[in-house]
Amino acid sequence: MTNLSSITLPKGFRAAGGTAGLKPSGKPDLALIVADHPCPWAAVFTQNEVCGAPITVGREHIAAGKGIAFVVNSGCSNVATGARGIANAKRMCDALAHAIGCDRAQVLPASTGVIGRHLPIDKITAGINALVPRLARGPQADADAAVAILTTDLVAKVAHRTVKIGGKTVTLAGIAKGSGMIAPNMATMLVFLTTDADIAAPLLRRALQSAVNADASFNRISVDTDTSTSDTVAIMASGCAANTPIRKADANFAKFQKALTDLCTDLAYQVIKDGEGAEHVIRVIVTNAHSDADALKVARTIADSPLVKTAVHGGDPNWGRIAAAAGRGTARIDPRKFTIRVGKVTVYRNAQPAKFDPQSAAAEMRKPEVLIRVNLNLGKSSCTFLGCDLSRQYIAINADYTT
Amino acid sequence: MTNLSSITLPKGFRAAGGTAGLKPSGKPDLALIVADHPCPWAAVFTQNEVCGAPITVGREHIAAGKGIAFVVNSGCSNVATGARGIANAKRMCDALAHAIGCDRAQVLPASTGVIGRHLPIDKITAGINALVPRLARGPQADADAAVAILTTDLVAKVAHRTVKIGGKTVTLAGIAKGSGMIAPNMATMLVFLTTDADIAAPLLRRALQSAVNADASFNRISVDTDTSTSDTVAIMASGCAANTPIRKADANFAKFQKALTDLCTDLAYQVIKDGEGAEHVIRVIVTNAHSDADALKVARTIADSPLVKTAVHGGDPNWGRIAAAAGRGTARIDPRKFTIRVGKVTVYRNAQPAKFDPQSAAAEMRKPEVLIRVNLNLGKSSCTFLGCDLSRQYIAINADYTT
Repeated sequence: MTNLSSITLPKGFRAAGGTAGLKPSGKPDLALIVADHPCPWAAVFTQNEVCGAPITVGREHIAAGKGIAFVVNSGCSNVATGARGIANAKRMCDALAHAIGCDRAQVLPASTGVIGRHLPIDKITAGINALVPRLARGPQADADAAVAILTTDLVAKVAHRTVKIGGKTVTLAGIAKGSGMIAPNMATMLVFLTTDADIAAPLLRRALQSAVNADASFNRISVDTDTSTSDTVAIMASGCAANTPIRKADANFAKFQKALTDLCTDLAYQVIKDGEGAEHVIRVIVTNAHSDADALKVARTIADSPLVKTAVHGGDPNWGRIAAAAGRGTARIDPRKFTIRVGKVTVYRNAQPAKFDPQSAAAEMRKPEVLIRVNLNLGKSSCTFLGCDLSRQYIAINADYTT
Repeated sequence: MTNLSSITLPKGFRAAGGTAGLKPSGKPDLALIVADHPCPWAAVFTQNEVCGAPITVGREHIAAGKGIAFVVNSGCSNVATGARGIANAKRMCDALAHAIGCDRAQVLPASTGVIGRHLPIDKITAGINALVPRLARGPQADADAAVAILTTDLVAKVAHRTVKIGGKTVTLAGIAKGSGMIAPNMATMLVFLTTDADIAAPLLRRALQSAVNADASFNRISVDTDTSTSDTVAIMASGCAANTPIRKADANFAKFQKALTDLCTDLAYQVIKDGEGAEHVIRVIVTNAHSDADALKVARTIADSPLVKTAVHGGDPNWGRIAAAAGRGTARIDPRKFTIRVGKVTVYRNAQPAKFDPQSAAAEMRKPEVLIRVNLNLGKSSCTFLGCDLSRQYIAINADYTT
């Protein structure tokens, strides 16, 4: 399990993961990530109007000041559960705050699992009390936490980066959970990040916002277009690296930003690679769009198109589907100007089919990562978006197991 | 085949369908619908920026004045084919215009099939010349035309309506083609309508616009979110019914509008029922939205959600997916106010799970038509949108047959 080492690599954090008994399978379902002292923290949440109770509570807590801990359960999402759901999310925080000696508002709660069921809060509070004594640093604690936030993800998702700031090594680490099912439930993306950087809270927020919106990062991936009610990406910065404090948007901030963006794109890639039923990653790169918004729209529409996704699944270089997807959004495009390449093969140029070897194009479509490049030749904006293929296994996961 | 009688039921039209040799299967692939004299006509086309050459030519012809004929081939869509594609679309019109003695601009061309290949125009012109002598009225001609526009649709889609206007019977008829594949290709929706109403062109356009945007009509259905490059809905009005001429938006216009809307929703239902791999129709009714746009957004997002579609496929009353889909769009909603019903079963109310019998809800999800009703309790707008379930068969159709 040493390869799962990550979330406590930055100095100033402990973690633990275990079983509170929420999953019929008996698999781990409760994770704690706790800082040694109050830290600057930041989070971005789902934009779904129907959001989970932990999101509502978490937004308040992030806004209230510094943070000390993330408490996460899998097996039940606590979404669409009304006032009782809010109370339960607060009780989760209370339980941890009481056990480690902090304020409720210094704890960020997160839950993933089936929608519309109430949290078995007594199991969770008992689980928290049992887990707090096991908080530790090191590979075992990291692995336990990374595994406990999963639902039916096939693999744990961990990553870390280091960057030198003012002669000191700053470490950033993260764990993620992608799309998965229990009974079944809504796919949820949860990402928890730690760093020992000394960085002011406004800059940490800014770095996180930028990192989640970077090319091929969390806001640039889609398994199935269904935005979860529980998506959360959160970070705490302990300051224990004793680096030159990052207090303004200078060169050191840029280094930190780059490392955080790298870390997020690494985890995002792991999430999409483990998408439900996915056998291929689809990387769509749109260049020379009229605006950033247009580049994103075209890239997202192609990556989300069921016909493109099934073409990739079938290894079929049916580029007409890519052209049609590019055209059906609301982005500004000129059909006479754009080119489409699949891997190294140009398939469409000057509003006409390009001459190409179908076997070469088919070989590109069968690669584990299929690269689709669309040059709109209209402006200077670009976007990289990641999707995955649509398979029978996706249908099986989401249709065959009934709640 | 008498049950396919439709497109020449209105007085003043002849039709024919046959085989020009575009499909490897040797199935019919060419249809003609010809009026006895120039008529007011109207059409709505795909909003995809990458549109077929026939769309570009058709827009010009519709704008140029009255019309006499529709010429339609299946087997090749003539999309993404550059200047040569435009020339071929015009040559299709020329061939028919020459054979029946009219102007090129009085002919509307339409093509459906694989994208990015050039029309075998010599086969088409030869086919047109062979078919013109067979133009006729009656069940056989109607059936031939209805079948020739199909690709891999499982059934032909025909319908008609009659309405009394000023003591005279006015007939409206239509044929449609839904999502299908050949080799494979892009799903295309083609709809051709005829009426013997005497109606002014601006009112015909207005009636068609209104009919395609009506609840559960063509702009309110989706098989897989992928807007085709070739979608076309076109109508000609021969005036042969000798009804009180419809020259203003009066009660007679309202009667005609209602009949046309009925006809369009009938054909739209047939299209969605024959959606690729579909086993269930999903009817989403959103009521009491803040605005018409919001009602449409919420209804469309639910009907298009892969997770809702797979839940219906699996007969799983996993209503959390419906709530999540309702929330993830950009429509104004208040999670505390809305209710969700599946068939007769209320599953969500007052921001909380409703108490319901899971077996009753599951039974509703297994019906051939699954009814999902969302009451947003915010305003007075509503929308009905039709979708279908997402099945392994959809994946098979779109992934397993390579071009």
